[in-house]
Amino acid sequence: MTNPGVTGELPDELAIDTDVARRIIVGFIREQLRQAGFERLVLSLSGGIDSALVAYLAAEAIGAQRLLCVLMPYRTSSEASRIDAEEVVRRLGCASELVDISSMVDAYFDGPEREDASPLRRGNLMARMRMSVLYDHSVTWGGLVAGTGNKSEALIGYTTLYGDSACAMAPIGDLYKSQVRQLSSVMGVPQAILAKRPSADLWPGQTDEQELGMSYAQLDRLLYWMVDGRREAGELADMGFDPEVVERVRRMVATSEFKRQMPPVVKLGPRTTGVDYLYPRRRPGSARQ
Amino acid sequence: MTNPGVTGELPDELAIDTDVARRIIVGFIREQLRQAGFERLVLSLSGGIDSALVAYLAAEAIGAQRLLCVLMPYRTSSEASRIDAEEVVRRLGCASELVDISSMVDAYFDGPEREDASPLRRGNLMARMRMSVLYDHSVTWGGLVAGTGNKSEALIGYTTLYGDSACAMAPIGDLYKSQVRQLSSVMGVPQAILAKRPSADLWPGQTDEQELGMSYAQLDRLLYWMVDGRREAGELADMGFDPEVVERVRRMVATSEFKRQMPPVVKLGPRTTGVDYLYPRRRPGSARQ
Repeated sequence: MTNPGVTGELPDELAIDTDVARRIIVGFIREQLRQAGFERLVLSLSGGIDSALVAYLAAEAIGAQRLLCVLMPYRTSSEASRIDAEEVVRRLGCASELVDISSMVDAYFDGPEREDASPLRRGNLMARMRMSVLYDHSVTWGGLVAGTGNKSEALIGYTTLYGDSACAMAPIGDLYKSQVRQLSSVMGVPQAILAKRPSADLWPGQTDEQELGMSYAQLDRLLYWMVDGRREAGELADMGFDPEVVERVRRMVATSEFKRQMPPVVKLGPRTTGVDYLYPRRRPGSARQ
Repeated sequence: MTNPGVTGELPDELAIDTDVARRIIVGFIREQLRQAGFERLVLSLSGGIDSALVAYLAAEAIGAQRLLCVLMPYRTSSEASRIDAEEVVRRLGCASELVDISSMVDAYFDGPEREDASPLRRGNLMARMRMSVLYDHSVTWGGLVAGTGNKSEALIGYTTLYGDSACAMAPIGDLYKSQVRQLSSVMGVPQAILAKRPSADLWPGQTDEQELGMSYAQLDRLLYWMVDGRREAGELADMGFDPEVVERVRRMVATSEFKRQMPPVVKLGPRTTGVDYLYPRRRPGSARQ
């Protein structure tokens, strides 16, 4: 077994057949577009590995000329991230647009009652400003929004509700971060993106792994055995997982259910949306988006 | 049968027992809060009937002192709406905050490439700015976001995805607009709010019914028989509904499924969020909201 503590390492049990995953995801993207009656995609390209991989998969599925990558830095965002994102755009040859969200974010937080807002509140608002800008571009570009969230962050709720988790489809939503890296390396994602430490870039110098208190290799291995392998706490302890870490991750998964579901609707009439009025998705085109 | 063409009229078949509906909704709000481990609510109060009713129901469920109403006008928003919203706050005695979203919205649309954006794009961005401001207040207030969407608009998709439809619970999500009005009148919602024509206030003078091309009484009656009553096109025609209107509404319902569901996730691993990893909501409290 590989050492699960090193950034970027792939635990043995998480290794995937990248040819199969690539084929299934590319087919998924095409099928979702067909069902919805669209031929184009738009996504938020951050300079990180997740959105880079989705850009590569999208370009393979529909051709780079049908893909718009929107770069949405805030004034404190990493300059290196922007350069990495621009390299993805250059290599793929897709359309791109740069929208600086600083003025939108500052317009809210510059008021006297909000200038002491925590980095967390600021990060959540930034994620929602990016969603709003992205969905406006989905109208002008005429494309569906491809989500860039992975399975690790979805399971522990390391996302902003109605922010970075908002999308029309989730092409890498069933890949753990370690698997995102594995697939990215065979798809040709730039080495600079593969090599750097994952970061939500919520504040300068932030890294996900520092905030989580463990490496993605450790987290992914634990989530794999806990969620996919359905092992219980005692079994996980027998496998060598630290019981305190197991309990902490279990709580993160349990308490973030609300981010993975539609909001509950009170049941009053014979058929209620989200409760017992449920249909497969059909072609969009309603008056409001 | 009442004339279904008049604003504010209640078709016979839509009449509800308001005592029962009130009891169920108040119980629903309390139970959702208990499950989530919260004691407070926050909502967006527009001056319209939907959010006014939710404010009254919320105040009854948890007491007005635990409710924060956020008023979020844009510079073209109706002054009368703000006055109506302030009257609700005054009557209930709840907390309120006014956040003008104009500078956030204009920061985006004032750029040279976007100044010709359609009223629809502007309205969608406004709805998303309000969601973003509201969710920031849910942190500072320590309360869950009560949604203000009704069944009529949810079914036809007359909502902004990740905008006004975003919430932690939907207390009036199973009430048609006509039923919202019926319940509002017995709960004491101000007469000025009961009397005016419904409007999303996307531009000055807009009314929902003008945009929809029919009254809510007509729409609700049709939706009731189509969705709750499961009548097919031929049966609806036999009942006197205009086949063209039936087909138009049927399409609106069918094409807005994507607004009432979580985004599709590609299936790759043994258990996939949103596909076959599904649990009841549990207590929140994760690192990011």
